[in-house]
Amino acid sequence: MSAGVVQPNRRKPGAAAVVGIVGGGQLARMTHQAAIGLGVDVVVLTPEADDAAVLAGAHHLRGTPTDAAALRALARSCDVVTLDHELVPRHHLEALVDEGYSVRPGPATLALAQDKALARRHLAAAGYPVPAHEVVDAGDLRAVTRFAEVHGWPIVCKWPTGGYDGHGVMMVHSTDELPSDVPATASSWLLEERVPIVAELAVLVARRPSGWYVTYPLIETTQHDGVCRELVMPAVVGPDLEQQAVSLAVSIANGIDAVGILAVELFVADDGRLIVNELATRPHNSGHATLDGTATSQFENHVRAVLDWPLGDTSLLRGAAAMVNVLGGAEPFEPSRVPAALTDPSVHVHLYGKTWRQGRKLGHVTALGETTDDALRSARAGAQALVGP
Amino acid sequence: MSAGVVQPNRRKPGAAAVVGIVGGGQLARMTHQAAIGLGVDVVVLTPEADDAAVLAGAHHLRGTPTDAAALRALARSCDVVTLDHELVPRHHLEALVDEGYSVRPGPATLALAQDKALARRHLAAAGYPVPAHEVVDAGDLRAVTRFAEVHGWPIVCKWPTGGYDGHGVMMVHSTDELPSDVPATASSWLLEERVPIVAELAVLVARRPSGWYVTYPLIETTQHDGVCRELVMPAVVGPDLEQQAVSLAVSIANGIDAVGILAVELFVADDGRLIVNELATRPHNSGHATLDGTATSQFENHVRAVLDWPLGDTSLLRGAAAMVNVLGGAEPFEPSRVPAALTDPSVHVHLYGKTWRQGRKLGHVTALGETTDDALRSARAGAQALVGP
Repeated sequence: MSAGVVQPNRRKPGAAAVVGIVGGGQLARMTHQAAIGLGVDVVVLTPEADDAAVLAGAHHLRGTPTDAAALRALARSCDVVTLDHELVPRHHLEALVDEGYSVRPGPATLALAQDKALARRHLAAAGYPVPAHEVVDAGDLRAVTRFAEVHGWPIVCKWPTGGYDGHGVMMVHSTDELPSDVPATASSWLLEERVPIVAELAVLVARRPSGWYVTYPLIETTQHDGVCRELVMPAVVGPDLEQQAVSLAVSIANGIDAVGILAVELFVADDGRLIVNELATRPHNSGHATLDGTATSQFENHVRAVLDWPLGDTSLLRGAAAMVNVLGGAEPFEPSRVPAALTDPSVHVHLYGKTWRQGRKLGHVTALGETTDDALRSARAGAQALVGP
Repeated sequence: MSAGVVQPNRRKPGAAAVVGIVGGGQLARMTHQAAIGLGVDVVVLTPEADDAAVLAGAHHLRGTPTDAAALRALARSCDVVTLDHELVPRHHLEALVDEGYSVRPGPATLALAQDKALARRHLAAAGYPVPAHEVVDAGDLRAVTRFAEVHGWPIVCKWPTGGYDGHGVMMVHSTDELPSDVPATASSWLLEERVPIVAELAVLVARRPSGWYVTYPLIETTQHDGVCRELVMPAVVGPDLEQQAVSLAVSIANGIDAVGILAVELFVADDGRLIVNELATRPHNSGHATLDGTATSQFENHVRAVLDWPLGDTSLLRGAAAMVNVLGGAEPFEPSRVPAALTDPSVHVHLYGKTWRQGRKLGHVTALGETTDDALRSARAGAQALVGP
C-alpha cells in the first residue's frame, strides 16, 4: 500500500486535505489556524481535552503519542502525519511508514530532533561545526571530570532525550552541581564544551519531500535560562555571516531529508565562527515572528510542505519583525489586560488559551516596524502589558 | 443588568473573551480563524453541522437565528453577540439588548443592512448621495411604469429584505420582465434609477462602540450578476475621489453608530459623482483582500471592535493586494487542484470547506504585488486553477 492510496476516513467533501498532528499544543493550534485558510482539516492526537489546539477547534483524537494503536488511528484519519513535539517512539512511526502511511518528517529525520546525542554525532560526522562533545553514562562523574579537564569548566550537560525549554540542559561548574537523581529517560548525558557566544541565530527552512525548499529571513533570538524570550527578523549581522548561516541550514535540511519546517539554531562564537546548536524538525518558537511578519507564516508553509504543495513567499512584509514570548507572570493571566497590549496598532497578540501558571508559555506578541528596534520596542510593550505587574 | 455584568457561561479559564456569531458561514469561519490568535473563543448559532465555521472548529450552538430562545442561549454564552448575516428578526435582538446583553452592531444599525428601503430613506434624509428611488407595493406595475417614465428604463427593482449576492436585485427594461411570483419576504419593491457607472468602490471602516475607528485602503470591486468577482486595493482613483469616498463612509459609520466592520459600497457615476449603493454592517466580501494584504484583517478588526478593544493597523503590506472569488465551476471541486493554485508564491488560497455546487462561493484567492495589475494577475491565475476547466 503506497502512501497515496491511503484514504483518510475523516475528510469531508469540501476539505482539501487532512493533516494529522501528534500533540495538541500551541504549535498544533497555530498550524490549525493556518490550515483553516487552506481548507485543510487538522486532527490532533492528544489525551488532553484542554490542549491549546483542541480549544481552538482542531479535530480531537483522544490518545497518547506512545500508543501504537492511537497513532495508527491518527494515520488512518489523515493524508499525512506530522508532529507538534518529539515525544513519540521512533519504532511506532517506522511501523506506520511500513504500513504505507505518510509521516513527515520521516522517523530517521525526526530521530535527530528526539535525540541530541544522535544529532551531535550525525552533524559532526557530516563535517558541520558543532561544540566538542561526548556522551557518557548518566552519573559517571569521573567521565565528566575528564571531559572538563580537556575542555575547561564550566561545561554543558544535557539529557539527550526528553528535554524542552531549558529543562534537561545544565551549565555545570563542578561535579557538585550535577543532579543526584537521574530521570529514567536519561540513561546517558551529553557533555558539551561551553562555547563563548556573542549571539544566537536561527534559520528556518521549509522543505518539500521532493527537495524544493524556501528559507526565511535570518532570525536573532534571545534566551534566558534556555527559554526563548524574544527575537527579531532580520538578524543584524554582516552579509557574509548571513549567507554562511543560510547555507549551513539548507545543507543540513537536504542532508537529513527534512520535510516541513526545520529550525536550525546556531551560536555565533566570540571568534566569529558559526556553531550548530540544536535542530527542531517542526514549526518552532524561533519562527513565531513569521506570523504577521512574513508573507507566509511558518505554520502555513509547514502544512504546505508536508502535503507536498508549493511553498509560499517568505519575505518580510516591513523592514523588520519582532516577537516576545508571554510567560505566566507572578499573578494569574487577566483577559482584561489584552486591550492594553493592543494599544500600539502594529502589535498582534497570539494567545494559546492555556490556563495560567508562573513561567508557562501562554502566548506571544508580534510587531512589525521599519527597524528591528522599532519592532522589538512595540512587541516588548505588548508582552509586558499582557504579563501584568 | 448592564452588558458588562453578564458572565458568559462558556468562557474557559485561558480564553480572553467569547464572541457569539449569529450564522456560521464563511464570514464566521474567517472570524473564528482570526479570533484564535487573539485567544478569543467563537461560538456560532446555526442549525447546520456542516456550516463553514463549524467545520473549522468554532463552538457550535445548534439553533435557528429566528428563534428567540436560541438567540438568548447564544447571548448567555458570550461577551458580545455579532452577526455573519442579516436574517435575524430585529425585535429579537432588541429584546436581548433590553435584557442587558451586548449586541454589536446594535439592532437599529443592523436594520439598515437588513432593509434596503429603510437604508435608502435614512441615507437620503441625512443628505447622502443615493440613487433616485421609490418604495412601491410588490406587483404594482402601474407604480413601476410611473417611476420608469420619470427616470427612464431600465430601472433597478430590489427586494428590500432577504436578498443576497444578486438574488433579489433585477435590472428591468419593461414591466414584462417583472416576476409574477412575489416571495413572501418581499411585500414591497424598492425601485431605483439605474445609475450609469464607471466603477464600483468599497470603503471598509472598523469602528468601536466609543467611536474610535480606522479605515482600510480604498477598494475597487468588480461584480457580475450582482456577485462580487474580484477586487483590488488600493483602488486606482484620484486623491480627491479617494478622500471623498473615505469621508463619506466615515460620516455614515458615525451617523448610523456602526460597530465592528462597516462596508460602504459606492458607485462612481459617469459624471464623476459618488453614490452610495449598499451598506453591510459586518465583514464583507469586498474586504477579503485584507486577509494577507493588510497588517490587520477585517476579521481581526471586527473581533477587536465588537469587544471594544484597540484596532490594528490597516495599511497595505505591499504596493497592492487583490482578491478573486472562487465560485463552483462546471465540475465538482477537486482538492488535487489546490497545489496548482499555489504555484505563484505570492498567492494565498482561502477555502471555506463547503461542498461544491455550480456558482456557489467556495473560497477566494488573494495575492500581493507591487501594482494592482501584478496582484490581480496572480490572484486570477490562482482562482482559475482552483475552479478547473
